[in-house]
Amino acid sequence: MGKLVCFGELMMRLNPEGYGRLVQADRLEVSFAGGEANVAVDAAQLGMETSYVTKLPDQELGRSAANALRRFGVDTDNIVYGGPRLGIYYVEKGASQRPSKVIYDRAGSSVSLAQPGDFDWERILDGADWFHFTGITPALGGCLPRICMEACETAKRKQIMVSCDLNYRRKLWSRQEAGKVMGELMPHVDVCIANEEDMADVFGIYAGDSDIEGGSLDVDGYRKAAQEMSERFHLSHVAVTLRKSLSASRNLWSGMLYREGKAFFSREYDMQIVDRVGGGDSFAAGLIYALYKAYEPQRAVEFAVAASCLKHTIEHDFNLVSLAEVEALANGKGSGRVQR
Amino acid sequence: MGKLVCFGELMMRLNPEGYGRLVQADRLEVSFAGGEANVAVDAAQLGMETSYVTKLPDQELGRSAANALRRFGVDTDNIVYGGPRLGIYYVEKGASQRPSKVIYDRAGSSVSLAQPGDFDWERILDGADWFHFTGITPALGGCLPRICMEACETAKRKQIMVSCDLNYRRKLWSRQEAGKVMGELMPHVDVCIANEEDMADVFGIYAGDSDIEGGSLDVDGYRKAAQEMSERFHLSHVAVTLRKSLSASRNLWSGMLYREGKAFFSREYDMQIVDRVGGGDSFAAGLIYALYKAYEPQRAVEFAVAASCLKHTIEHDFNLVSLAEVEALANGKGSGRVQR
Amino acid sequence: MGKLVCFGELMMRLNPEGYGRLVQADRLEVSFAGGEANVAVDAAQLGMETSYVTKLPDQELGRSAANALRRFGVDTDNIVYGGPRLGIYYVEKGASQRPSKVIYDRAGSSVSLAQPGDFDWERILDGADWFHFTGITPALGGCLPRICMEACETAKRKQIMVSCDLNYRRKLWSRQEAGKVMGELMPHVDVCIANEEDMADVFGIYAGDSDIEGGSLDVDGYRKAAQEMSERFHLSHVAVTLRKSLSASRNLWSGMLYREGKAFFSREYDMQIVDRVGGGDSFAAGLIYALYKAYEPQRAVEFAVAASCLKHTIEHDFNLVSLAEVEALANGKGSGRVQR
Amino acid sequence: MGKLVCFGELMMRLNPEGYGRLVQADRLEVSFAGGEANVAVDAAQLGMETSYVTKLPDQELGRSAANALRRFGVDTDNIVYGGPRLGIYYVEKGASQRPSKVIYDRAGSSVSLAQPGDFDWERILDGADWFHFTGITPALGGCLPRICMEACETAKRKQIMVSCDLNYRRKLWSRQEAGKVMGELMPHVDVCIANEEDMADVFGIYAGDSDIEGGSLDVDGYRKAAQEMSERFHLSHVAVTLRKSLSASRNLWSGMLYREGKAFFSREYDMQIVDRVGGGDSFAAGLIYALYKAYEPQRAVEFAVAASCLKHTIEHDFNLVSLAEVEALANGKGSGRVQR
Amino acid sequence: MGKLVCFGELMMRLNPEGYGRLVQADRLEVSFAGGEANVAVDAAQLGMETSYVTKLPDQELGRSAANALRRFGVDTDNIVYGGPRLGIYYVEKGASQRPSKVIYDRAGSSVSLAQPGDFDWERILDGADWFHFTGITPALGGCLPRICMEACETAKRKQIMVSCDLNYRRKLWSRQEAGKVMGELMPHVDVCIANEEDMADVFGIYAGDSDIEGGSLDVDGYRKAAQEMSERFHLSHVAVTLRKSLSASRNLWSGMLYREGKAFFSREYDMQIVDRVGGGDSFAAGLIYALYKAYEPQRAVEFAVAASCLKHTIEHDFNLVSLAEVEALANGKGSGRVQR
Amino acid sequence: MGKLVCFGELMMRLNPEGYGRLVQADRLEVSFAGGEANVAVDAAQLGMETSYVTKLPDQELGRSAANALRRFGVDTDNIVYGGPRLGIYYVEKGASQRPSKVIYDRAGSSVSLAQPGDFDWERILDGADWFHFTGITPALGGCLPRICMEACETAKRKQIMVSCDLNYRRKLWSRQEAGKVMGELMPHVDVCIANEEDMADVFGIYAGDSDIEGGSLDVDGYRKAAQEMSERFHLSHVAVTLRKSLSASRNLWSGMLYREGKAFFSREYDMQIVDRVGGGDSFAAGLIYALYKAYEPQRAVEFAVAASCLKHTIEHDFNLVSLAEVEALANGKGSGRVQR
Repeated sequence: MGKLVCFGELMMRLNPEGYGRLVQADRLEVSFAGGEANVAVDAAQLGMETSYVTKLPDQELGRSAANALRRFGVDTDNIVYGGPRLGIYYVEKGASQRPSKVIYDRAGSSVSLAQPGDFDWERILDGADWFHFTGITPALGGCLPRICMEACETAKRKQIMVSCDLNYRRKLWSRQEAGKVMGELMPHVDVCIANEEDMADVFGIYAGDSDIEGGSLDVDGYRKAAQEMSERFHLSHVAVTLRKSLSASRNLWSGMLYREGKAFFSREYDMQIVDRVGGGDSFAAGLIYALYKAYEPQRAVEFAVAASCLKHTIEHDFNLVSLAEVEALANGKGSGRVQR
Repeated sequence: MGKLVCFGELMMRLNPEGYGRLVQADRLEVSFAGGEANVAVDAAQLGMETSYVTKLPDQELGRSAANALRRFGVDTDNIVYGGPRLGIYYVEKGASQRPSKVIYDRAGSSVSLAQPGDFDWERILDGADWFHFTGITPALGGCLPRICMEACETAKRKQIMVSCDLNYRRKLWSRQEAGKVMGELMPHVDVCIANEEDMADVFGIYAGDSDIEGGSLDVDGYRKAAQEMSERFHLSHVAVTLRKSLSASRNLWSGMLYREGKAFFSREYDMQIVDRVGGGDSFAAGLIYALYKAYEPQRAVEFAVAASCLKHTIEHDFNLVSLAEVEALANGKGSGRVQR
Repeated sequence: MGKLVCFGELMMRLNPEGYGRLVQADRLEVSFAGGEANVAVDAAQLGMETSYVTKLPDQELGRSAANALRRFGVDTDNIVYGGPRLGIYYVEKGASQRPSKVIYDRAGSSVSLAQPGDFDWERILDGADWFHFTGITPALGGCLPRICMEACETAKRKQIMVSCDLNYRRKLWSRQEAGKVMGELMPHVDVCIANEEDMADVFGIYAGDSDIEGGSLDVDGYRKAAQEMSERFHLSHVAVTLRKSLSASRNLWSGMLYREGKAFFSREYDMQIVDRVGGGDSFAAGLIYALYKAYEPQRAVEFAVAASCLKHTIEHDFNLVSLAEVEALANGKGSGRVQR
Repeated sequence: MGKLVCFGELMMRLNPEGYGRLVQADRLEVSFAGGEANVAVDAAQLGMETSYVTKLPDQELGRSAANALRRFGVDTDNIVYGGPRLGIYYVEKGASQRPSKVIYDRAGSSVSLAQPGDFDWERILDGADWFHFTGITPALGGCLPRICMEACETAKRKQIMVSCDLNYRRKLWSRQEAGKVMGELMPHVDVCIANEEDMADVFGIYAGDSDIEGGSLDVDGYRKAAQEMSERFHLSHVAVTLRKSLSASRNLWSGMLYREGKAFFSREYDMQIVDRVGGGDSFAAGLIYALYKAYEPQRAVEFAVAASCLKHTIEHDFNLVSLAEVEALANGKGSGRVQR
Repeated sequence: MGKLVCFGELMMRLNPEGYGRLVQADRLEVSFAGGEANVAVDAAQLGMETSYVTKLPDQELGRSAANALRRFGVDTDNIVYGGPRLGIYYVEKGASQRPSKVIYDRAGSSVSLAQPGDFDWERILDGADWFHFTGITPALGGCLPRICMEACETAKRKQIMVSCDLNYRRKLWSRQEAGKVMGELMPHVDVCIANEEDMADVFGIYAGDSDIEGGSLDVDGYRKAAQEMSERFHLSHVAVTLRKSLSASRNLWSGMLYREGKAFFSREYDMQIVDRVGGGDSFAAGLIYALYKAYEPQRAVEFAVAASCLKHTIEHDFNLVSLAEVEALANGKGSGRVQR
Repeated sequence: MGKLVCFGELMMRLNPEGYGRLVQADRLEVSFAGGEANVAVDAAQLGMETSYVTKLPDQELGRSAANALRRFGVDTDNIVYGGPRLGIYYVEKGASQRPSKVIYDRAGSSVSLAQPGDFDWERILDGADWFHFTGITPALGGCLPRICMEACETAKRKQIMVSCDLNYRRKLWSRQEAGKVMGELMPHVDVCIANEEDMADVFGIYAGDSDIEGGSLDVDGYRKAAQEMSERFHLSHVAVTLRKSLSASRNLWSGMLYREGKAFFSREYDMQIVDRVGGGDSFAAGLIYALYKAYEPQRAVEFAVAASCLKHTIEHDFNLVSLAEVEALANGKGSGRVQR
């Protein structure tokens, strides 16, 4: 199977049990996650060989974070140890009219202070088939835009596919900064993944009159936005996730894949949500898998959306489902009858 | 911010985790609650200065109960210690067609045996802006009707606003007793909060042909019932909560505020329920806040209903939400998108 | 009250908390269950005297399994101790588009190795009013088909009612084996319970064009299939559960009871699911209770469906509800309003 | 095996997990216990047929309490349902220099309000071999002294052995009351179990100069006290537990059995304590078993002390050990090597 | 009762349950603590009026931290909100030969970035009787040495007693820095608390040949070291805690109080440890209480050591014991017999 | 670092929380373990490259078992998937006079049914420095003795060091079988690890008059037994663990290493036990590490004993300690002072 290398932060995630709020909690569930790390784990569940690149503090928390990836089959030999601390984020799971809430405590993390010399991309990407990162990684600042560029350039030189999930985070950088840095990185990217807001925030490309909270989508607008993205940056594929948030407990979820002038829309799932954090990342992982396996576009987007639909039923960030489970849903087995 | 004084029982709440039944439980979650104590805590979260008046046994359980209020910002200096025991109530959370179940074990609690001399209302209400109690407090019997009367009279003398939630509990007293005692207290009340059944049970005022379980409401009937309440007891405001119980997991929820001949109905929320105990109390707290801040009636009822809608998504009785969260929902942000 | 004897396996059930997957779990909830044991416990909650017959290993796990039945009022004096091990099954609770998953580890269990001499049916069935087993018991193989036959013959000789839930399990035996063995046992059975797939798999009797996952039912087809079952095996009653699985979180649930040429369909419940394992068993227990009490067919099927509707709201396999709760729902109290 | 009937209260026990204090707890472990109920359960584990007599409220908590006995093999058919509430007690487990703490909330419990007509002792004691109660039962007041007397008289008439554990509780009655009531009951008792303080508090019989906290025992004083007890009340056996409390975590534990002028002292165990509540009750159960089986006095006291030594290593009140485990320890296997 | 003001950091404490290691944990217990905050809470349990001064981030974690103090009776009105984050520390509880381990993640916390203008010491110390801080507070760097100096000077001007626990933390500053800064603050201090290592590390004052790990103490050396401290800084009292660490599970614990040339040694406790973090702080709180109440030196040190002995039996940092419990132990009740 | 290959079973371990008994448990902690797997994990924590060889069922439980090794750094690429089930063992943690109890449910596990062709030892041992197995592996029967022989022969041919822990399990095979099979395997072994009972049970070699439960050791007897082992099988090293079991809570622990006629005894640790399962395996891992690093015999045995002493303070089977922690204890840091 193809070898996927992902680069980004790896954080400790802390959340109260169930629907508890932080101010009520006297214990927190611990897991480890990050936008790119989630993709690495999710792709490993589907059978890809994956390796994660990050920097972690050389103490119990950093080691535990790496162990979490290793447990689920991600190679951790390219992780660098050092620096002061592990980034943390807190999640409160929303319900009904109360939204989920995420609080970040990631400033000063080891990876955000990483230096270009920390990662030997020539060696790391040796034998790789695919390189994935997201807009969060350069947004961490410091040397990370430069390190991302170095990784992308090395990947291109080695003719490795590069995918990027825009993932705009307004608390990390401004739209201007994001537009500038991402605009420089995009020319090295083959597959861009985004949602409507990301495209608008980072590149000022609007998908039209969609009313996200209301539930209606402007299909043509999405196609045009993807086309504009594709043409501006010479992308082979643009993938967009389409979330209609009816409440914190119920979402409609589908996706679009744009390739060579055509937009392929998946079926739409009506989801009762268990944990929606990591939903977008599971779409990216499913898409990478499907494109690496050279699925036809319609099948690829159905696969990616089915994978990410299942993610919404699983606690914590990782999409701990098997290839067979994703294929079954993509093939229409969504009635939830007991598997004995 | 205004100072709110609430008076009533404070109990230990014990419930199995999740949807477990009591006969299955080998551990119980502990919290502390009570109809009036919930209002005090909920109002404190919105920023009001609040003080709670009750009597608790002078041992670990009584101290823990007071600590629970103190933790969430309620002043406990007016709590009196003594008497034999802390009242307890057990909650089983319902789901779908299985209703939630509450078992009370409150007989002989310290507060139910309180004596008039236990509370120095002159001192307690000194500097207060608002006094709140519910029909549960006099229903506890003993000297409590007299103590409530003393509190109401003192409040009126000091020109403090008085609110009362009828909260009829048939296991505590008969309709006749309730009608008599509440009828004597009502003339001191400015703002009365009730649901349809309370008005009918306590005062024989019927809101018409509403079919609570079916889901349709007789809007005009509600207005008329509120008008009758208002006129009979010279109330400035009558507020009614409107719950359409589709199942234990899903309710439609709205409210009405009646003032000077006009009835203001809020929007209606379609709620996936996490824990509905304390829902009515959170409406009362929201309303007290809104009226204290002199919100217009429509805005006031929207605020109170938004606050109580959020309560249904939170475990245990207290409405642990911030003012900003209530305002956001009252202003229409109910789609549950993640807040990062 | 009537005395019900049930015979079958009793297993340890292990499941992750909440919606956790097995690969995530670092603790598992322990309960004890089995298709026939569930019926015994469920009937005991309704007030029937029940006794369970099985074979358990003579160590802590076997003793704990028997204790679990005893706790909920089932007589365990007919349980035989010996043999190597307790069967285990693992449950992952599904949600939304992710189905629940059951993994069995029951090979070599004590009961599957039981010998005919282990159970003295003359004594066991002495004074009994009803004998119940399911298709799972003979499917365990070894001497169990013969032991089931011995039990059925003894029951018939003593003029005890015999009920059987087909419960076809394709991992335990082939359709051919099932058809042969069950075909020999059926003539001793009075009441047969099944779902559409069981009748088709075991006896090749098809209920028509129902689309289980889609949600539409062929009412006439069900009646005809029941009629064919009834006629082929001289059954007094045939009961069928009708599940429309919209997702793992939401099912429509109803039932049909066929007697003397007529089919009685219950109302249909729209269920938000807490735990659906044991749902069919709770229908059987409700039906046995209702038929033993000589309820009219329409009332009987409404009772059985109401009982099993409530089961879907309760964690683990046992239907821990009271007779009063079932009657209330069967009489239309399904709105989930809090019971204080 | 012999049939033992026990009579007394059955309460819900609530305790924080581990060494947590009540003021810290946000969940409590639930179990059910009572001085006499513990004896019934403990004797059932050893193989005796046991039945428990009490009165419980007819709701979920009362049913759960009965279920807890039934789970561990105690017959609950003699339990009467009715009355207002289930008694509760709270336990904080001590450690090192911090003592364990017990808070009772048992006033007004169903059993404390029981009436003589509630229990048909003729029927209850039919076929029984042994009747056991403790000084706590009459101490509950109301009609309980009279009911105890009725039970004792019936037992004597039926020539059933009667044992009583003095168990003086100063919060329930004064020494004077205890001395009077117990003095009237004692003539019907055959086997009296006590510790040094009980004998002194209830009957003014002092065991000499023992320094309980310091650790030295006055052997002769104990023998003389037992002799005095024996002679005053014509007891066949007097048994005394000897606890030297070095700290809340470590106790030395032994016992003495007095019969026909001779005192038999057991070996002394140096115990690391897991949960010491119920330790005395497990001694009583062990002694009842041993005397029923007509063990020689030395073997009897060794057996009873070994059983109760093991109790101190088990969470909650019940002594969930097997006969084989007790025999092994009584025979000297106390090194704690792993049993595979 | 006297009013105590404490100043320092307030952190979130995260620890695995029981003896789990961080690399094993999939949930963490949450509490809030800090060397000075612990003193505030501990003194409040003894009945003192206490107020805590710190700076916390204005989000859920900061609010939860303040709530934790408020819950246990500490006034939080002097807490300032702002700055980026809440400091965190992780604790692994040791056992036997494995030491407890603490990992700090406190860099960049809101309080460490506090500015002099954040705290209005004139107002904060108005009406106070005692001001307490530790060497950790200035060690946080930034403006904190200057803020501490301002607090001390204001306290002295107001003739408020000042106590300081040296609490040297080598990961926060060097011995040189500590010596310089603490040397400047000490002249404003009345009561200095330290252990042997602190005195040596910060001021180069050695207590002699004590072998901490081995268990023998050089009594005279301690007296001399205290005398030197006292004379160098014109201290009214010097208190020293004496810990002999036999293992992570068992410590011998005592204390010394030096006043006017005399050293008073407490009895020594042989402790089985539940949680030793916060042990020194509970000694400080006990001492402050005792000196405020003008206990004689011997009684004062016995009180402080008894309080802190009990702390070692309580989970998390706070010493949740009552005045009566401390007095009982100080008066010799250390045998751990159950309190009913 | 050297590469270690271990071969044996890998099971799911289920245990009640804390000191709970199985008959009380309503949840069980899940971990994965096995005598040889523990060695692989423990050695990986010390820094060795390790690989585990076993056969697991190809479903969630088998995958979870492999994940558990992978999480802690063991290579799982040599694990074969197939066969019917995962072996299970249950652990009850003992305390004081109550011994720990282990119940195995491993019959019919995938590895016990493995075939010689399942493992390609030439490839598996390619590049390895050390091969380790225990007497449990051939005791599983079937083809395992033959597979072990094949592995040993391949290792010898490749000049890889072979170590074997005798680990006699009487429930798996008789002494005669064990003696025969192990006697044939031993000639390929370089380093044999055993305790006194193993040597006696398997080879009839007695270490003299040691009284294991009493606590005294016959030092010379141990040396002679090791010498006899060494000479009979041409072993380079014989290592013996010496456990004096004072109670289930407290053991004295040391070890002996015999080489070239000399016996090296380690210091003895007085341990307060958290979890003693896996204690012997951690000794083996420590010894393998030390011998691979060519430590002098005295240092080697001190290292191995220190490692295994720490294991006794850690929950579950794996010795999750770092090299630095072991070295610190081996160098005498056993006082348990907090590491900050």
